[in-house]
Amino acid sequence: MHQIETIISPALFHLHEEGIAHKHVVVIDILRATTTICVAFANGAREILPVASPEEAAAMQKQGWIAAAERNGETVPGFDLGNSPQDYRVETVSGRKIALTTTNGTRALQMSSAASHVWVGSFLNAQTLCDRLIDDNRDVLLFCAGWKDKFNLEDTVFAGYLASLLSEHFSITDDATLAAIDLYNLAAADLKGYLQKASHVNRFKSLHIETDLEACLKLNTLSVLPEFRSGSIQNSQYAPTQS
Amino acid sequence: MHQIETIISPALFHLHEEGIAHKHVVVIDILRATTTICVAFANGAREILPVASPEEAAAMQKQGWIAAAERNGETVPGFDLGNSPQDYRVETVSGRKIALTTTNGTRALQMSSAASHVWVGSFLNAQTLCDRLIDDNRDVLLFCAGWKDKFNLEDTVFAGYLASLLSEHFSITDDATLAAIDLYNLAAADLKGYLQKASHVNRFKSLHIETDLEACLKLNTLSVLPEFRSGSIQNSQYAPTQS
Repeated sequence: MHQIETIISPALFHLHEEGIAHKHVVVIDILRATTTICVAFANGAREILPVASPEEAAAMQKQGWIAAAERNGETVPGFDLGNSPQDYRVETVSGRKIALTTTNGTRALQMSSAASHVWVGSFLNAQTLCDRLIDDNRDVLLFCAGWKDKFNLEDTVFAGYLASLLSEHFSITDDATLAAIDLYNLAAADLKGYLQKASHVNRFKSLHIETDLEACLKLNTLSVLPEFRSGSIQNSQYAPTQS
Repeated sequence: MHQIETIISPALFHLHEEGIAHKHVVVIDILRATTTICVAFANGAREILPVASPEEAAAMQKQGWIAAAERNGETVPGFDLGNSPQDYRVETVSGRKIALTTTNGTRALQMSSAASHVWVGSFLNAQTLCDRLIDDNRDVLLFCAGWKDKFNLEDTVFAGYLASLLSEHFSITDDATLAAIDLYNLAAADLKGYLQKASHVNRFKSLHIETDLEACLKLNTLSVLPEFRSGSIQNSQYAPTQS
């Protein structure tokens, strides 16, 4: 049986690099990068290029890309979009390419690039993602982007949700995944209520996080499967093998 | 109100170093270093010197110290003691000085040495320790030694127990402490049963961990207060100030 392990902070990523070329990584930045990426593809975006700095996003803007930049939860002045999933509407993103830089999510994607596959995970596409992970049947790393290397509740609770969905098909022995499952089970009946106490939510109280939080906690509303490959994210259609 | 924060792995320690000279650190290595240190002092040990290598412990042995060395859960051959609290009996340790090297606990103590005070925490002396922390009324870092930088359940659950005992007197806003409290509350009714699933417990199934686990989960049986200061640990008697 293949394994699931959870990386609760980018500062612990190096402990899981051995054999990563044979593993699938799910990058998790629930508030809000990976949620926003899922919404963008569901609304017709063609490609998303994660870039390290607002300057790089601005350079792509000159070539006709949408430039999206967030720092500390706010849209960087002069950019088309920030990191709120509610801004990635069909009329804005359909058919477009987007250069995106965020505080934590972009970095986690780039750290994972040596993996066999790097998926973008959110509550919105969780079941679609799990179907694919079960089908591919390889070791899986659930990589929480955290907040500037700190542990955060929302990414860990989501890792626990994925691990719960996958638990019949994978071996789970590491303490981080066991803890994540327990935290998800505590939170499941009222995800929004539970995550209200998260430091990230309180940090963004003034930034319309209330409605963003709701948008980020919709379970399995999208069937997109964004994959990060060769430096860029595209929507990989899910087609299960015939059994 | 002063703050409690939890460091769930030594790899995250650097995020908490700012202002550490004014903070109290509780070093936590429940299975088994910090538990064993508490037992040793309760049974009359005079001093414990945490050293980085078995070679350093062996050098102290020649000067009349007890040499204690554990690697990967086992006593290193040729040493007087390993890291099992059950071996630190009165007849062995009373009046003696002990040089101790362990996989994770020793390192966490040494990392903390810039703090205002560095305490050794375990379930056995939790209430005595909390009385002191409340009395001193400074910011507190709960520092989980983990397992080779990985998150572990038993240290985090204990951090949650301490945070619960301290919650009326301190501000708790970081996600790691909130998660630790939730995990402790889940585990509280049957600590041993809950921690049976921990990877550390399973790693040591062959090493009498069953009886060690029971010895490590006795709540508030000891009133010792071991303090790490100037490179060495001594038992600081607790004397609350008169209010």
